[in-house]
Amino acid sequence: MIQKLTEKIRKTNAPVVVGLDPMLDYIPGYITEKAYQEFGETLEGAAEAIWQFNKEIIDNIWDLVPAVKPQIAMYEQFGLEGLKVFKKTLDYCKEKDLVVIGDIKRGDIGSTSKAYAVGHLGKVQVGGKSYAGFDEDFATVNPYFGTDGIKPFIDICRQEKKGIFILVKTSNPSSGEFQDRLADGRPLYEIVGEKVAEWGESCMGDSYSYVGAVVGATYPEMGKVLRRIMPKAYILVPGYGAQGGKGEDLVDFFNEDGLGAVVNSSRGIIAAYKQEKYAKFGDLHFGEAARAAVEDMRDDIMSALNRRG
Amino acid sequence: MIQKLTEKIRKTNAPVVVGLDPMLDYIPGYITEKAYQEFGETLEGAAEAIWQFNKEIIDNIWDLVPAVKPQIAMYEQFGLEGLKVFKKTLDYCKEKDLVVIGDIKRGDIGSTSKAYAVGHLGKVQVGGKSYAGFDEDFATVNPYFGTDGIKPFIDICRQEKKGIFILVKTSNPSSGEFQDRLADGRPLYEIVGEKVAEWGESCMGDSYSYVGAVVGATYPEMGKVLRRIMPKAYILVPGYGAQGGKGEDLVDFFNEDGLGAVVNSSRGIIAAYKQEKYAKFGDLHFGEAARAAVEDMRDDIMSALNRRG
Repeated sequence: MIQKLTEKIRKTNAPVVVGLDPMLDYIPGYITEKAYQEFGETLEGAAEAIWQFNKEIIDNIWDLVPAVKPQIAMYEQFGLEGLKVFKKTLDYCKEKDLVVIGDIKRGDIGSTSKAYAVGHLGKVQVGGKSYAGFDEDFATVNPYFGTDGIKPFIDICRQEKKGIFILVKTSNPSSGEFQDRLADGRPLYEIVGEKVAEWGESCMGDSYSYVGAVVGATYPEMGKVLRRIMPKAYILVPGYGAQGGKGEDLVDFFNEDGLGAVVNSSRGIIAAYKQEKYAKFGDLHFGEAARAAVEDMRDDIMSALNRRG
Repeated sequence: MIQKLTEKIRKTNAPVVVGLDPMLDYIPGYITEKAYQEFGETLEGAAEAIWQFNKEIIDNIWDLVPAVKPQIAMYEQFGLEGLKVFKKTLDYCKEKDLVVIGDIKRGDIGSTSKAYAVGHLGKVQVGGKSYAGFDEDFATVNPYFGTDGIKPFIDICRQEKKGIFILVKTSNPSSGEFQDRLADGRPLYEIVGEKVAEWGESCMGDSYSYVGAVVGATYPEMGKVLRRIMPKAYILVPGYGAQGGKGEDLVDFFNEDGLGAVVNSSRGIIAAYKQEKYAKFGDLHFGEAARAAVEDMRDDIMSALNRRG
């Protein structure tokens, strides 16, 4: 799957991931109203609105980008009805041949991490049969438990040719509170980064590992250091756009081959029509606004990479 | 909810949580066979078997313990069908007036943590109405993101009078890989513990905070230190029984008032009938075996506490 991701990045010339993290207030009123008319102001109604919104976004961006990243929390907040739409969204993206990164940030002790890995990347055994529960291509994973919380994910990745992105340095303002603590004179995120590189060796694709890392666009200096510490790890970079990251900040997340990083934007794309820059599209054409925002983001990143030469 | 937990612990005289973490191979064959006959060897069939198993366990232990802790991963591995049974299990436990700790170990950047907090502890707004998605009483939370990943949970706890347990020192063998790193001469888990105490101050019940901590039974010396660092935090202690923790190891997790800790056992209780000690109950009476195992665990912990005086 890491090969599929790199091939699609090459083909689209866009190291861009669209974050499918719908909030109800991103969704144009005419969509929520129609859904509420059919299902009432209920969890089912909210789920239907999210589905119609996602579908329009996906239909407008699927040919431009290699991958999407649905954030499961935004679905989980609506309980079971939300999770049904999460699954429906995954399936629809796969129909469009998009690489699907489940942004689930799971992690636990070994036996429990195994259950998460099975549910999201693998297959669960039921009597003589086996079933894929959610069936993403990649998942994000939290490293707090150390090796035995990560290993079950790696085992499933090796088996299924899927991948993970392990949190190393997150994009939020307080990420430094624990991640930047100096241990033996080095920040914790570097120590986690070293482990990511080590774990990744056992699980290589052609030139990149199935084991990648999450490093926030909001910390470019740290991204530069981590790029060197984990040369074979694909870096998933959140925090572009709405959180403040720009293309010129991101060049050092990439390797010399122009690969090695893939940048996520969520709100900046799916709610682009609410920005002044894309206001001309209006509510009715929010999908086209998202498409224009993807093109602008791609051009911003690629021109920064080209300036680097 | 922290008051309800302490009152129920006092009333049952059992600082014990039953971990409802069903694996298919814990479930007696006659239950899975019946479920497969009705639903086939499908995800629905697995879910039905888990539900029948859980119900029998709950019916046998609800009056002995203050709380249960369903581990969501064990349900999530069966996809949507598994999560339906997770919700059904939560609801059934609440009917029995048990305190329900959702062992979800979520955590993310602020806006995303808010969605998790809303989905598991709070209510989501849909038009003019609001709905509780999963509606646990407590949830476990991962601290890797720092304050802005925790604060949304605390806001919802304050609003809903619910609680969280933040991972401080986990019970698994490799937990020390990052958690024990010395930063400024002190292990990271102590630094996280201090933050738990600080976060908890803004969210107090009568004598304990709504903000608790997870500290593994497998690390009693660290438990002793953390008890002092976080005097007002309830400690949820996993790792008893199958993972190796014993009653005598646990006394220092408790405060002088005999409160302040609640000990979880999962496999050791729900699959007790598979142990030689409880084999006399047989497959058919696995619920009674679980009840006997709870009584033994309670007596083990309480006699250790009484020996301490």
